[in-house]
Amino acid sequence: MSDYENTLPEKPAATASRRDFLRLSAIGLAVPAGLSVLAACKGESAGGAAAGARGAANGPGTAAGTTATAGMAHDSDQSGGTNAPHPATPQDARAKADAMDAMHEKGIKSFPAKTAGKGNVLMPPRMEGGVKVFDVTAGKVMWEVEPGRSVEAFAYNGQVPGPQIRVREGDRVRLNLTNRLEQSTAVHFHGVELPNDQDGVPFITQPPIKPGQTYTYEFTAPNPGSHMYHSHHNSAEQVGKGLLGAFIIEPRRKRAVERVDVDYVLIMNDGYHGYTFNGKSFPATEPIVAKLGQKVRIRFMNEGMMIHPMHLHGMHMTVIDKDGWPLPAPYRCDTLNVAPGERWDVIVNCNNPGTWAFHCHILPHAESEHGMLGMVTALVVQK
Amino acid sequence: MSDYENTLPEKPAATASRRDFLRLSAIGLAVPAGLSVLAACKGESAGGAAAGARGAANGPGTAAGTTATAGMAHDSDQSGGTNAPHPATPQDARAKADAMDAMHEKGIKSFPAKTAGKGNVLMPPRMEGGVKVFDVTAGKVMWEVEPGRSVEAFAYNGQVPGPQIRVREGDRVRLNLTNRLEQSTAVHFHGVELPNDQDGVPFITQPPIKPGQTYTYEFTAPNPGSHMYHSHHNSAEQVGKGLLGAFIIEPRRKRAVERVDVDYVLIMNDGYHGYTFNGKSFPATEPIVAKLGQKVRIRFMNEGMMIHPMHLHGMHMTVIDKDGWPLPAPYRCDTLNVAPGERWDVIVNCNNPGTWAFHCHILPHAESEHGMLGMVTALVVQK
Amino acid sequence: MSDYENTLPEKPAATASRRDFLRLSAIGLAVPAGLSVLAACKGESAGGAAAGARGAANGPGTAAGTTATAGMAHDSDQSGGTNAPHPATPQDARAKADAMDAMHEKGIKSFPAKTAGKGNVLMPPRMEGGVKVFDVTAGKVMWEVEPGRSVEAFAYNGQVPGPQIRVREGDRVRLNLTNRLEQSTAVHFHGVELPNDQDGVPFITQPPIKPGQTYTYEFTAPNPGSHMYHSHHNSAEQVGKGLLGAFIIEPRRKRAVERVDVDYVLIMNDGYHGYTFNGKSFPATEPIVAKLGQKVRIRFMNEGMMIHPMHLHGMHMTVIDKDGWPLPAPYRCDTLNVAPGERWDVIVNCNNPGTWAFHCHILPHAESEHGMLGMVTALVVQK
Repeated sequence: MSDYENTLPEKPAATASRRDFLRLSAIGLAVPAGLSVLAACKGESAGGAAAGARGAANGPGTAAGTTATAGMAHDSDQSGGTNAPHPATPQDARAKADAMDAMHEKGIKSFPAKTAGKGNVLMPPRMEGGVKVFDVTAGKVMWEVEPGRSVEAFAYNGQVPGPQIRVREGDRVRLNLTNRLEQSTAVHFHGVELPNDQDGVPFITQPPIKPGQTYTYEFTAPNPGSHMYHSHHNSAEQVGKGLLGAFIIEPRRKRAVERVDVDYVLIMNDGYHGYTFNGKSFPATEPIVAKLGQKVRIRFMNEGMMIHPMHLHGMHMTVIDKDGWPLPAPYRCDTLNVAPGERWDVIVNCNNPGTWAFHCHILPHAESEHGMLGMVTALVVQK
Repeated sequence: MSDYENTLPEKPAATASRRDFLRLSAIGLAVPAGLSVLAACKGESAGGAAAGARGAANGPGTAAGTTATAGMAHDSDQSGGTNAPHPATPQDARAKADAMDAMHEKGIKSFPAKTAGKGNVLMPPRMEGGVKVFDVTAGKVMWEVEPGRSVEAFAYNGQVPGPQIRVREGDRVRLNLTNRLEQSTAVHFHGVELPNDQDGVPFITQPPIKPGQTYTYEFTAPNPGSHMYHSHHNSAEQVGKGLLGAFIIEPRRKRAVERVDVDYVLIMNDGYHGYTFNGKSFPATEPIVAKLGQKVRIRFMNEGMMIHPMHLHGMHMTVIDKDGWPLPAPYRCDTLNVAPGERWDVIVNCNNPGTWAFHCHILPHAESEHGMLGMVTALVVQK
Repeated sequence: MSDYENTLPEKPAATASRRDFLRLSAIGLAVPAGLSVLAACKGESAGGAAAGARGAANGPGTAAGTTATAGMAHDSDQSGGTNAPHPATPQDARAKADAMDAMHEKGIKSFPAKTAGKGNVLMPPRMEGGVKVFDVTAGKVMWEVEPGRSVEAFAYNGQVPGPQIRVREGDRVRLNLTNRLEQSTAVHFHGVELPNDQDGVPFITQPPIKPGQTYTYEFTAPNPGSHMYHSHHNSAEQVGKGLLGAFIIEPRRKRAVERVDVDYVLIMNDGYHGYTFNGKSFPATEPIVAKLGQKVRIRFMNEGMMIHPMHLHGMHMTVIDKDGWPLPAPYRCDTLNVAPGERWDVIVNCNNPGTWAFHCHILPHAESEHGMLGMVTALVVQK
């Protein structure tokens, strides 16, 4: 059994699950095969204490404890596993379930929860003689990731992610970076094909920007697409703590597929601040809202250390761009694996009304026994 | 050195390897460069004690200790690394190797090993007035993952994965879910584009299904393809423990590429039960068997928390579908990276006879010093 | 807070960061919302002690502490996060920043650093009656991964990765494997569609090659492309320690896209030896060098246990092959996610002169507060 435990490179689930797991393993080991130390589940007959979450009406979407046709007897018919011990009486089970459900409900009902600070806010440029100028300051802030949980963050203009920058292909762009951190920094324009001296890598393309200094980047916006700007100095810490943002270069001419009603940037991170979308953890994440029939473009950007396979409920996504480059053969999916440093652009045709869960499908990044958490948001399609 | 150790986010290998690693590192540190504290390997000349695993005949596939032309002298020619210490005498080395090999052989010879319970069994629907009805009960069972290792599982109808459900595009489908767990649950039809109230997310699209209750889902099967059904309540635990299964919607009209001889569903998991294919770890995994010249479709589904790059020996796979959607440009590969929540459909033209290893290429998911384990099976092409 | 900590499956960053993280979290918890226990950053005005990394000239690429327009006042305008405490005086901050920068500079200035041993060296075959013969010995060596850090390695002909083998489609190929390890081994030709008895899986397709034995593989080179050879016995350890190499089958006829000026093989590993490219960690990694206007083909091969999303600065990559198979729809990207066992071939049109960082974008695989490390190299485009 110890072999098995050693082969687990990640904890099986969030919160207390590792402990649970070990405890259950211990039970598993202690129980001789085929022998149940606890009451058999047949004692808990179909149509038990708890009936009708939606009432007892027949038809789709009904919960009717009294109409159960299966029960555990069904299990032994198909004789997959052997019945496991479970100590709880139906009343105990219901009370425990209600307690767990209350936590889940509380989280969902509070969504989208208010927190101080909002990141990824579109930043209007200052015009200086035909140049679009962006003044950006890197500094330390306390950042509220979800209600009541504030963490130390490194932020551009006090935002995590930093302000969203959008320019147009061919624009002359200037970014003044002022460093108010206690360590040096530098800005790399990830995905943007710049002259080497604007690439933002200390000791390779520029000196580090020391605390207190301002450094100016200037270039003509080249290859269009969904790019990023982020620190390239002590980056595991600086990007992990928030020195990152979207840097989008709009094309001179939009493709037909790019004519959308909602254009949303979703940046993932998974380090010092936990599992976040645009700097916030569920329930403080932001829902994406569209009307029935509208087209939504989502620009996924991963600034974390892990993959995050993003799963959309109810509708599929058509993948159109990779790292800002149009895919020659766009394809459809409902779960898109986004690796660190990647950007993927997708289109959703909002043809299915409702509130749709939208989350990372590494389940411990999205839910624990206490309810949804971290990398969960919703796509709301309004009628 | 501590820096290096700290940068390792996963254990380098299964079982005792972390300890081995630390021990070896310690040796590495303790040995001054160029100085060997142990007997040089030149003492072990080519053509040593152990000759001829297959006999001494010349030609391909022969093992002939006496014909070695290289030896460690070769190493110093190309002067890559410096010779490392190794304390064992040839006799010791052979005895240790034999002991390790015996464990490996035992595992492979026992494949496919018998265990109690089989998951992913095709479930015939019950017809009710033109509706295909599936009665599914969620309950706790003890599940034998490999011979002698039983774990607590949450199972649909006692199976891990739950019964395989197949319907046809346009079918009217009803699923009655009875909850015999001690916690609430709900079923999400992952990848199926349903009306919002059938989406299975407690507190967003329905109330949780309490212990003892039965809840009914009903819908017309929409977008065809390889989908899944699984819990969407306390899912890190519930899916991790087994509440998942394949939900396949056959298209009204099959594409030419879909006319296959074998249609196989392979569901991966990696949480509470270890590394599994269809609920079993090697050597209890199930081989896929085809005849020479046949076409096999494999539907990969990942319900775990990690990526699993599936590597097939001997033949390539042609990737035709992503999440149930036909790829506009199918491509070939031998190693397919499957992320959590993803489904990938591939075709294998079985043109190479033999028993072919088929495994996750994250090697600690597939092998330890004790032999193959976890995510290993075989594709057998019979002449 | 303990919930949050428990949801972190990987350490947030290299080296001491876990400790830092905990310390910072503690601060975050201790500070009531809106109250700063430390000096506000306004005390550190723009145009502070440290001015002008490049001097004070106006224009792109200048650092001018005196021209800062933003400062922390900007932060409160956009009111993202609340100002965080920071205890250091500007002088302290500068001294700390200088100390950190010195470590970063030292690493970069030493690149490419000399180490003993070079892996992945092209191996000329010995001709025997029309057969290309490769004599390969597996043995234990001490391997210098980066200056001053030597580790125990399992090596083919003393190299990590083993010698690069290149043959041509249709060639008759013989590989004599002599085992000088203290455990058995076997060679699997990963991606090469061989007759079953040449597949290299002990107890399935051949007996293990015992210590002291030589075993011969022989076959006609089939499907062309970027493949690998590596141990398939106790492979988590043996491949993790270095028994791997590139096995490339050149096509009989090259496609137009394959006519390149530089053909580079980049093999990743991430186990016992840390994060490596071709067996070396930064700054001992090898830069790829090309002239302006040249075409470079990079053959990525992952022999590790983790994904590595490879990010190239300054230019994009056109992805042409997957596992040696031509993609029907090549696509462009700057960050290519390479999973264990996968091979991806890309073309870079070197149209942007300079030294371009080229690294895994899982940032702790590439940088710590001590500077760049592990999976970092450079593509140098010379004018």
